Amino acid sequence: MGLIEALDLIGTFVFALSGALAGANQRFDAFGAFVIAFVTAVGGGTLRDMMIGQTPVAWMNDTRYIYLILVALLCSYFFKRYVLKLRMTLFLFDAIGIGLFTILGVQKTLDMGLSPVVAVMMGTVSAVFGGVIRDVLCNIPPLIFRKEIYATACIVGGIIYLALTPVMPESLAMTITIVSIIVFRLFAVKKKWALPVIE
Amino acid sequence: MGLIEALDLIGTFVFALSGALAGANQRFDAFGAFVIAFVTAVGGGTLRDMMIGQTPVAWMNDTRYIYLILVALLCSYFFKRYVLKLRMTLFLFDAIGIGLFTILGVQKTLDMGLSPVVAVMMGTVSAVFGGVIRDVLCNIPPLIFRKEIYATACIVGGIIYLALTPVMPESLAMTITIVSIIVFRLFAVKKKWALPVIE
Amino acid sequence: MGLIEALDLIGTFVFALSGALAGANQRFDAFGAFVIAFVTAVGGGTLRDMMIGQTPVAWMNDTRYIYLILVALLCSYFFKRYVLKLRMTLFLFDAIGIGLFTILGVQKTLDMGLSPVVAVMMGTVSAVFGGVIRDVLCNIPPLIFRKEIYATACIVGGIIYLALTPVMPESLAMTITIVSIIVFRLFAVKKKWALPVIE
Repeated sequence: MGLIEALDLIGTFVFALSGALAGANQRFDAFGAFVIAFVTAVGGGTLRDMMIGQTPVAWMNDTRYIYLILVALLCSYFFKRYVLKLRMTLFLFDAIGIGLFTILGVQKTLDMGLSPVVAVMMGTVSAVFGGVIRDVLCNIPPLIFRKEIYATACIVGGIIYLALTPVMPESLAMTITIVSIIVFRLFAVKKKWALPVIE
Repeated sequence: MGLIEALDLIGTFVFALSGALAGANQRFDAFGAFVIAFVTAVGGGTLRDMMIGQTPVAWMNDTRYIYLILVALLCSYFFKRYVLKLRMTLFLFDAIGIGLFTILGVQKTLDMGLSPVVAVMMGTVSAVFGGVIRDVLCNIPPLIFRKEIYATACIVGGIIYLALTPVMPESLAMTITIVSIIVFRLFAVKKKWALPVIE
Repeated sequence: MGLIEALDLIGTFVFALSGALAGANQRFDAFGAFVIAFVTAVGGGTLRDMMIGQTPVAWMNDTRYIYLILVALLCSYFFKRYVLKLRMTLFLFDAIGIGLFTILGVQKTLDMGLSPVVAVMMGTVSAVFGGVIRDVLCNIPPLIFRKEIYATACIVGGIIYLALTPVMPESLAMTITIVSIIVFRLFAVKKKWALPVIE
């Protein structure tokens, strides 16, 4: 298993974990929590694949994702207290996750022959729209439409990746992009950065 | 018209009827109630078809579904009191409906060459996600994420069907699956079975 | 640029403007307001394309839509007070927009070989489901399920267009359809027409 594959699976796991806990917060039962964990983890990529026409959607061709999300659900049941203590670790892997998902979404969209601006949008959708669908199913307004810079980190990351990838080795461009997103996220949370609101 | 086709149309009709009444509960007008009836009846299959890439989605190739849903809407307008009295009949046909929709979703997904676990998931999506979309459009948290075992009946039914279909005639496997789902549903409601919630 | 193309872009712009303001009403930040502007403007066509299987969805092949929506977002930030004064103009272009989007949706669906009744439904989805997705993301019940005749104008317009297009030049059929929708909308709002609700 390569590093990218490992990070992809870890990112999926961390997303699913946070989704399962979000479902539990709504007092959803095990089925509901599984659906929320699932859409949080793979909903963004699923929406991207349906929009660009890459069907059956990605996770259907690799059942490991399904089992991984089931394991995350079980972890949220049996180790909830422990999971909640890992906040900083989860934050880090969440940032790595959105970075990687952005890049993979950008690549997939470019491979379809679509334009770079669409690719950045689809990269962002891959990374953050699982959370939007999660919030819609939990019947709350999507967090990322209000909270600290989250989607913006993906947009910036996607642009950085597009700028770097023609002038350096792929692995270096990916590393710089992901590190940028992590740093960006850390600053955004620490400094309470926020986008303007229309007044 | 074969038995399966008849049950499919009756299931669609019953789903549409319950959808129209759910729309009325929200004080939606005739257009809103039609949309809710429509997504309740065919929304699950539509989502499945978009995810597995079988487009145009199924109902577009058979306009009988559209007229059937319109008739269900009219029935909910003119015979609402009578419809509400048929609770046990509707419960039965709803259970037959989710059983049949699960099986048809499983079959369609397997026909695409996707794995059995994905097939059970898509069978369940076919049967219950119309109700999820209905609830999202009604701006309430999806009922099946909280209520008695409903989606679980489909998952269990899908697994039973997958286990039986290689070792017996198709029609017998389908009958046993649908009867199992009905019995499962009856017990779940009578005994107030519930899935655990993450504490 | 032809007249249809110009009206299409103006319609998109007006939809995006109203979406950005709807996002602002929810206190969403710039990213959230952009998403709401985007789905309001192109969400209906995106859903139609995913359902009929015309992917990548339309706007991905013409980046002008993306930039236009960004400009609409900026206008809502810097000229909000001025925009709100243009109510009558916006109402007019909104009516032209739903008329044109209905026709384009009907045409695209017929071109796929689907039936006229499906075409009218997909025309209506193109015109009004962007607003439905906007409301879902804003966590409010879809306005058009309750309010004055809005979707009905599209359904009527779609039927008029289907009836006229075989017996007269295309441009005349389109003009009559759009004018009918505008007149229909004006009367609906003035006379407070409403569809019945199931009691």
